[in-house]
Amino acid sequence: MIRVGVFGAGGRMGATVCAAVLGSPDCELVAAVDPQHAGEPVAGTDVTISESPEVLEAAAAEVSVDFTVVAGARENLRWCAAHDVHAVVGTTGITEDDLDELTNLFEHSAANAFVAPNFAIGAVLLMRFAAQAAPWFETGEIIELHHNKKIDAPSGTAMLTAHRMAAASQQWAPDPTTAVVAEGARGGLVDDAIRVHSVRMQGMLAHQEVILGTTGETLTLRHDSYDRSSFMPGVLLAVRKVAGLPNGLTVGLDALLDG
Amino acid sequence: MIRVGVFGAGGRMGATVCAAVLGSPDCELVAAVDPQHAGEPVAGTDVTISESPEVLEAAAAEVSVDFTVVAGARENLRWCAAHDVHAVVGTTGITEDDLDELTNLFEHSAANAFVAPNFAIGAVLLMRFAAQAAPWFETGEIIELHHNKKIDAPSGTAMLTAHRMAAASQQWAPDPTTAVVAEGARGGLVDDAIRVHSVRMQGMLAHQEVILGTTGETLTLRHDSYDRSSFMPGVLLAVRKVAGLPNGLTVGLDALLDG
Amino acid sequence: MIRVGVFGAGGRMGATVCAAVLGSPDCELVAAVDPQHAGEPVAGTDVTISESPEVLEAAAAEVSVDFTVVAGARENLRWCAAHDVHAVVGTTGITEDDLDELTNLFEHSAANAFVAPNFAIGAVLLMRFAAQAAPWFETGEIIELHHNKKIDAPSGTAMLTAHRMAAASQQWAPDPTTAVVAEGARGGLVDDAIRVHSVRMQGMLAHQEVILGTTGETLTLRHDSYDRSSFMPGVLLAVRKVAGLPNGLTVGLDALLDG
Amino acid sequence: MIRVGVFGAGGRMGATVCAAVLGSPDCELVAAVDPQHAGEPVAGTDVTISESPEVLEAAAAEVSVDFTVVAGARENLRWCAAHDVHAVVGTTGITEDDLDELTNLFEHSAANAFVAPNFAIGAVLLMRFAAQAAPWFETGEIIELHHNKKIDAPSGTAMLTAHRMAAASQQWAPDPTTAVVAEGARGGLVDDAIRVHSVRMQGMLAHQEVILGTTGETLTLRHDSYDRSSFMPGVLLAVRKVAGLPNGLTVGLDALLDG
Repeated sequence: MIRVGVFGAGGRMGATVCAAVLGSPDCELVAAVDPQHAGEPVAGTDVTISESPEVLEAAAAEVSVDFTVVAGARENLRWCAAHDVHAVVGTTGITEDDLDELTNLFEHSAANAFVAPNFAIGAVLLMRFAAQAAPWFETGEIIELHHNKKIDAPSGTAMLTAHRMAAASQQWAPDPTTAVVAEGARGGLVDDAIRVHSVRMQGMLAHQEVILGTTGETLTLRHDSYDRSSFMPGVLLAVRKVAGLPNGLTVGLDALLDG
Repeated sequence: MIRVGVFGAGGRMGATVCAAVLGSPDCELVAAVDPQHAGEPVAGTDVTISESPEVLEAAAAEVSVDFTVVAGARENLRWCAAHDVHAVVGTTGITEDDLDELTNLFEHSAANAFVAPNFAIGAVLLMRFAAQAAPWFETGEIIELHHNKKIDAPSGTAMLTAHRMAAASQQWAPDPTTAVVAEGARGGLVDDAIRVHSVRMQGMLAHQEVILGTTGETLTLRHDSYDRSSFMPGVLLAVRKVAGLPNGLTVGLDALLDG
Repeated sequence: MIRVGVFGAGGRMGATVCAAVLGSPDCELVAAVDPQHAGEPVAGTDVTISESPEVLEAAAAEVSVDFTVVAGARENLRWCAAHDVHAVVGTTGITEDDLDELTNLFEHSAANAFVAPNFAIGAVLLMRFAAQAAPWFETGEIIELHHNKKIDAPSGTAMLTAHRMAAASQQWAPDPTTAVVAEGARGGLVDDAIRVHSVRMQGMLAHQEVILGTTGETLTLRHDSYDRSSFMPGVLLAVRKVAGLPNGLTVGLDALLDG
Repeated sequence: MIRVGVFGAGGRMGATVCAAVLGSPDCELVAAVDPQHAGEPVAGTDVTISESPEVLEAAAAEVSVDFTVVAGARENLRWCAAHDVHAVVGTTGITEDDLDELTNLFEHSAANAFVAPNFAIGAVLLMRFAAQAAPWFETGEIIELHHNKKIDAPSGTAMLTAHRMAAASQQWAPDPTTAVVAEGARGGLVDDAIRVHSVRMQGMLAHQEVILGTTGETLTLRHDSYDRSSFMPGVLLAVRKVAGLPNGLTVGLDALLDG
């Protein structure tokens, strides 16, 4: 049984993590931290939410999970490195500077850190497959579709996918368009190689489609995320694997999918 | 049996029309015209391609079909109006001025003219359904996907679909995008209402998808055209119905689908 | 303002209805009934859940909404007919005998009843479009995809769609299959006309795709339901229209979509 | 320049191969064989179709391509092995016994043989990706869609895909269905693991979709083949790589995709 402590346990994402840990036969929820919800119980457990990370040490937590905000995550991760608690981090807004600091912190710790921008296994597989397939096709475009409250376009995952496809092949066909009837119709061009189209649609959540074409055939890879619970298999995978990772920092779920 | 004459019978589209007429139990191919292929036989028939339209009169053709080029089509249609031969026209490049002239010509003829920008029944139904559904949804976008030789974007059919959706509802949600990461990602905006995304993909032919969204659900309408033979059911429908249309000019396959 | 009372207000579906009524500018939640949750408040309102329907009369409710269980719904609807409260019903399990009784009850009431098996507007439009398109295609099949807890296959909506397609056209092409490599591969045959394929997939909710094909082209109609909130636009539409319906009983959202 | 000879050069598939070789800058068409079309020229070349394989020797062909019928292919391949001409084979109907014989023949030849049941690179990548992804998902089903002249269901490619998915994971969720409303709705069960649904649709050609689902997300892999030209990139790949393969027989395009 892996002893797990959850940061931000009172928030929506943290509560979902707590539920996933509880539902996993090889994990045990031993501590929960959230200054804004201190004193509340975690449903279905004897654990009470604490104000500060010391509770992880008291409960002998081996792994922490952090889906909070970036300022809080920095503090939490420093604490984990100092106290030899492995860290699994899905908080958004982590910068390159943060990653440098985490590398340094955890190389000097007995614990490891794992950071991923996307914990949906299907999304990570899609990116990998799109890059593997790219050299066999002359054309490739991305359509990402999200709920109509999303303010950035294209999505971060679509940008990352486009970068990986562009890096995987240099032989993309030129755009045939010479008559633009409505400006922007051909999408956003990424790395001078891959066009990305962003759809914003009420009712949808997070969806991405990569289409690749060559003579007489196309290959389409699509990921649909219906629910924030889609992150949980990836979070549990990281919880199980973080102790066995190379010392220091590992970035990206892709690194965990191979064995 | 409807007696049919085909203009441009030696070209790819004209040859496909000839084959469709031959394959139709209630139609008979009686004449074929094509100055560039005069003297050649039409496969599977006794008909020889002629240089000029007089052969339609000689063969007592009741209906002509014209998939040629716009300059030739103008001459052909004047001849048909003058000689009381019904005309079915799929030639691209017909202008509003042409339509005015055709209206005038055929109102003074015993024959009728039928012009359609798209003879694929599925594409026409898609447009109709998109307009009918529009008032029940808050968001609607179009993705059109074509082979990577297509020079205009969006396609004419996508523009027409967007116009019809915009006309069918005035209550489209505003674009939530405030951070454009790659210029053009949100597509081409048509009629200040509908965003259209154009994909150019090797291997594909002509495809269009309309997505409509409201609370918790989406409706997607998709048309796939795999082959120029996709126009033939629509052409044969027009051949059968043109004699019974109102005197003068009728535009659009939509008018033929209701009874 | 339409004065609305909600049966089963403490259940998941009833609570979603309460929230939809609260979010609608032309509706007012005036009463809530649920024997199992009597005494609880309805969030965001002054309304307290009552044990029995008399509270609708006291609050002068004009329209009731019932998403409960069939035994309870029968009692609720008799009460509504006797007390001249219009009834909107989405409860599953309503039988033909129930519909006969409701017709009789509400023909003798000053109120009207509206019953629908599916309140998702997109699903209802899909069925309508599938039937309208059917006569123009030679082949048509249905793929329905649901979460992997669903015990019946095909879904009720898929069966209804197949019946409507079969009724709309008698000219479906015969099945070309002569070598069945895995029994059942060609799906379930409905009305000797339409084949239905049922996919059960973890992560999904409720999705249906109708594919229609003719020479060189296909038309695909797809509905995706992501959330039980997808029923709410249809429920609110019914709440607004039930008072204006013909006296007695009306069945099916389709009847409300035309004007 | 690779010197290529084509068997069955007068047939539809063989003619497509000839055109692909002609269009390839690193390949040269030096010989064509087809008893039924002997004496005819190959369009765009000086090559005349011969009745028998000796012409390959005369023209110093290095690689042969065979898309013929299985009886003819056996003769052609024996000849190639005996005359040290590498063989690329896409003929359908090759049996396990044939593969054993080919292994034996080409292990005793200076030439190599390459046989593949499917030369569409996208279809082969789809199978590979489906197997790689399988262990990360609890549910997986296949929908294959073909033109409505196809007599077998499921398709050979779908069966192969199902076998590979079944072999890649032993942890598929059980079927939740307890109420079968239309027999066959849940598709054909392959290897007691993967359900396959076969759609037959006028207008379509050859399409396959694999859907995989886990908590809150799905991954969909789709291949669309629009044209027999879709085989050509795979055929040219094999022509370029066959000389460098291990001595004897190699089966499946998958083996050529890795470097």
